[in-house]
Amino acid sequence: MSTEQLESHDVIVVGASLAGLSAALYVARQGFDVLVIGMDLGGQATLATEVENYPGIPRTSGLSLVDKIRSQVERFGGQITYEEVTSVEKLNSGFKVKTNMFSYHTKALVLAVGKSPRKLKVKGEEEFKGRGVSYCTVCDAPFFKDKVVAVVGVGDEANESAIYLSKLVKKAYYILPTENVVGQSNIVSQVKSNETIVLLLNSEVREIRGKDRVSSIVVYDKSKKELRELEVEAIFIEMGYELRTSFLSNLVKLNEKGEIVIDKLARTSCEGIFAAGDVTDVPYKQMIIAAGFGAIAGLSACNYLLTLKGKGIIFSDWKKL
Amino acid sequence: MSTEQLESHDVIVVGASLAGLSAALYVARQGFDVLVIGMDLGGQATLATEVENYPGIPRTSGLSLVDKIRSQVERFGGQITYEEVTSVEKLNSGFKVKTNMFSYHTKALVLAVGKSPRKLKVKGEEEFKGRGVSYCTVCDAPFFKDKVVAVVGVGDEANESAIYLSKLVKKAYYILPTENVVGQSNIVSQVKSNETIVLLLNSEVREIRGKDRVSSIVVYDKSKKELRELEVEAIFIEMGYELRTSFLSNLVKLNEKGEIVIDKLARTSCEGIFAAGDVTDVPYKQMIIAAGFGAIAGLSACNYLLTLKGKGIIFSDWKKL
Repeated sequence: MSTEQLESHDVIVVGASLAGLSAALYVARQGFDVLVIGMDLGGQATLATEVENYPGIPRTSGLSLVDKIRSQVERFGGQITYEEVTSVEKLNSGFKVKTNMFSYHTKALVLAVGKSPRKLKVKGEEEFKGRGVSYCTVCDAPFFKDKVVAVVGVGDEANESAIYLSKLVKKAYYILPTENVVGQSNIVSQVKSNETIVLLLNSEVREIRGKDRVSSIVVYDKSKKELRELEVEAIFIEMGYELRTSFLSNLVKLNEKGEIVIDKLARTSCEGIFAAGDVTDVPYKQMIIAAGFGAIAGLSACNYLLTLKGKGIIFSDWKKL
Repeated sequence: MSTEQLESHDVIVVGASLAGLSAALYVARQGFDVLVIGMDLGGQATLATEVENYPGIPRTSGLSLVDKIRSQVERFGGQITYEEVTSVEKLNSGFKVKTNMFSYHTKALVLAVGKSPRKLKVKGEEEFKGRGVSYCTVCDAPFFKDKVVAVVGVGDEANESAIYLSKLVKKAYYILPTENVVGQSNIVSQVKSNETIVLLLNSEVREIRGKDRVSSIVVYDKSKKELRELEVEAIFIEMGYELRTSFLSNLVKLNEKGEIVIDKLARTSCEGIFAAGDVTDVPYKQMIIAAGFGAIAGLSACNYLLTLKGKGIIFSDWKKL
């Protein structure tokens, strides 16, 4: 199939995340034709119920923020379609983007596929999501002040989650599959000496139970080989994030975490491909930073298109990452 | 004078620009003690009367945006003081920041001094600022639709300003000191072929006149050696920007434009010093990018402080720029 038969856009943004929408806003406002392809509008950002650190907006929710940016994208003529990108192929001229439904051609790509929390994959997890099952301790801990909760995971993020919870809750069961707490030594010792944290080592969560909301979890002790039911009002699942970048690994350089390596102009290792947001190796996962780097990626994509027309200035040298 | 006698802060942000305030918001919210030292609140951002491309805020003004961020900084306990920083000195431990009034000590610095438009330095310029004298074509051109205006400057920015104006105004005098239009060839030819643009080569603006607002300018033709008075309702001064970075040149690496070189974590070439906003070598001067990189600089400063306490993760290697 030749590229001429494909629906073509100046810029395709993969991922309707906050970073992706911000990129599209900038591309559309510069007068280029842009299509955002994503499965869910807003991604991770929509999970944040209360946002107080987005400069310029004293208080909002992730959902409201995302919806405002969507309306800005559309006002400037950007299009959004809800499909799943399954592959990206480099052509002689531009790229071919395949989704579960169609194929598209584009001259420049912005990758903003975000990340999604790794699931526990046990009974009750989907059912009680947002009703006691949380993937964001910092977001949801304040709802369980003086309650009994559980946290499950392993490593620094789970350790920090347990410490964070211990300042608020009455008791925090910390369920780990390992024989000891692992992570940075100073944080491990804080976990071990914390009286609010009850360590359940060598253990696995097998089920989450409840009626309307979480009321208990079933934990299996691998050394004792026995099941226990613990009454908790919430379970914080801190098992890290999954990046949907494996389908891009032939195209752009990823770091050891699977994050896309970018420079400060949001350029990836592949000419014509830019990236922004949680999927990149910028270590701070904050909405304002996703929005800022989204804007950078959008403007860089526009500059790249101008370069192709012999008009750009800054992309005479595609720096090798 | 020993550092113990100086007022000390965990982080000092030099510059109350949008980037500086965003950095301070993040530092303060992380629980560190932060002082912003600046001469004018908001800097360049406050000149923008209509902002429609800040993701999440469909329509605002630069002034309103800056005031909201200031209130967020203060809500989280950040302090702002209006002084002029005159020097920054690296000490054995941290930095000494001298202002026109006091001296301070800090462990980490965020440089966000912004930029200021270069002045024409003629009679009437200060008097009619904001009343026909503009330093931002994109911001103010819409106010002079179908009017006669002037633009002064040389090079790509002035050329683009003239082209931009020509789409809106009745006539645009373009006053250049050079014998020809200089800049990128495709843009130069657009300027030359544009019927709305009246080129006044080899010429200088000598005075700006008016009563309440600009009504004319006095232009000197260097080849004919004569003065002319031209009736205009506005003069757009597009002579580039001045960066107040010379006092930092011994401390951090600057590029050929005098901009502070940073990496994507907002680190400068000097350990413990971060930078964000228009003063850096990030080429896109946009509010959302200033806010995003401000947040990065703030979080990086916090991480640096944690590193000093042996708790940080990401700054074990201060990458050399």
